[in-house]
Amino acid sequence: MKRIRMIIEYNGANYVGWQVQPNGLAVQEVIEKQLERLVGVKTVIHASGRTDSGVHAYAQVAHFDTESRIPADKFSYALNTSLPADIRIKYSGEASPDFHSRFSAKHKQYRYAILHAPHASAFYANTALHIHSRLDFDKMCEAAKLFVGKHDFNAYKASGTDIENTVREIYLSEWKKDKNMLYYFVEGNGFLYNMVRILTGTMLDVGMGRMSLDDVKKSLEVPERKYSGQTAPAHGLTLMRVRYDDFDTDEILENLTKGF
Amino acid sequence: MKRIRMIIEYNGANYVGWQVQPNGLAVQEVIEKQLERLVGVKTVIHASGRTDSGVHAYAQVAHFDTESRIPADKFSYALNTSLPADIRIKYSGEASPDFHSRFSAKHKQYRYAILHAPHASAFYANTALHIHSRLDFDKMCEAAKLFVGKHDFNAYKASGTDIENTVREIYLSEWKKDKNMLYYFVEGNGFLYNMVRILTGTMLDVGMGRMSLDDVKKSLEVPERKYSGQTAPAHGLTLMRVRYDDFDTDEILENLTKGF
Repeated sequence: MKRIRMIIEYNGANYVGWQVQPNGLAVQEVIEKQLERLVGVKTVIHASGRTDSGVHAYAQVAHFDTESRIPADKFSYALNTSLPADIRIKYSGEASPDFHSRFSAKHKQYRYAILHAPHASAFYANTALHIHSRLDFDKMCEAAKLFVGKHDFNAYKASGTDIENTVREIYLSEWKKDKNMLYYFVEGNGFLYNMVRILTGTMLDVGMGRMSLDDVKKSLEVPERKYSGQTAPAHGLTLMRVRYDDFDTDEILENLTKGF
Repeated sequence: MKRIRMIIEYNGANYVGWQVQPNGLAVQEVIEKQLERLVGVKTVIHASGRTDSGVHAYAQVAHFDTESRIPADKFSYALNTSLPADIRIKYSGEASPDFHSRFSAKHKQYRYAILHAPHASAFYANTALHIHSRLDFDKMCEAAKLFVGKHDFNAYKASGTDIENTVREIYLSEWKKDKNMLYYFVEGNGFLYNMVRILTGTMLDVGMGRMSLDDVKKSLEVPERKYSGQTAPAHGLTLMRVRYDDFDTDEILENLTKGF
């Protein structure tokens, strides 16, 4: 028995999310089906976390246990031959038996992409939110800084989700601009349900003048959902990076293409 | 009667190309159909040139004549409400009656995109060529320089296409690298059929060691198709920019989003 971990890229547009749901196709079940064909037995895959319907991953991490004699690094190639083009295994390798995609994760990084232009794009309709109204980008950048550090993010979780501890630590929270595209990058030790989408929506409210920086401060001091802003739609969101003590998806992917 | 010109962005994956063909849906007919609904009469649209099946446009230029009283700058908004998400009108405005999308064009710029990585991408399957073999990128950059200037590009046109004058002038021919992505940019006063795809394929042959820089030089000195390399597939190619004496798509698009 060995434990295999993978880095998975997927365009979430055609899926109900990572996890199996009654109302459509999940990324997890698509991969599990091909894995079963490959190793001959039903094999459960555990990811670093769920992603919602329409959310994408540049680097989702998932693991499974198998008795298969396929070399660990060959699972990526073998699975890619039969997976649909919008799901790609970018890496596979052996992990120690105590590695767990979800419980061993230390940091996760997300990116929210916005196309800020008069008209939508023929290329990014499913991967970036289109905003055509005026935005105060500098104010959005200031708002992003307020989230860095350890805060009670109770105002930034979908209402109705029950969870004991809503304190999370954010290490990186910043906007980057590339011509028409605005990218929000956020990295933390964990995220509440819909947290990145509410963070982004709140900063959009700031950019549109519907909320002030003081309003944002208040939402962290009095952490109630009514003090934060709108929830940005799912399709702008991408899981970018997962870090473990012995495994960093960015590092692995960079090494894979080095000296290529 | 007034002449309206437009800048059009399209993802060519689902189309047989710009021009109407018997075997599938063309970008031109999709737009003409919505334009007819809008202005009430069948209206022909003339583009700066055809693009092949699967080829994309970031900035195709096209014009039409109309008696409609819709303000020139409103055609983009009106058409976008009914066009499919993979075709977007990014600009519309009035042009002088002697402007012609094709005959007035001075420069055109194309980009060929290559994902150079061990595995394909879940996001760019339709918009970038995936290459997983080793490439000598420096040699490819040297080869690109050889194309700059006025040359007989007869070796770089699809065989079987008859055309008198195969001399073209190339002003820009260079590769840019962004992590895993390799982009070839080429701008000239005109292009022969399949020219950019054969230029790219030839440079890929150089990168893979199947052709030398001397071979490329020979293909320009003895301009026969057998001395150039392979034809790169259509889906990596995008029409990026068209320039006229009084109209530059890059400039227009930049101004549209300025101070936004």
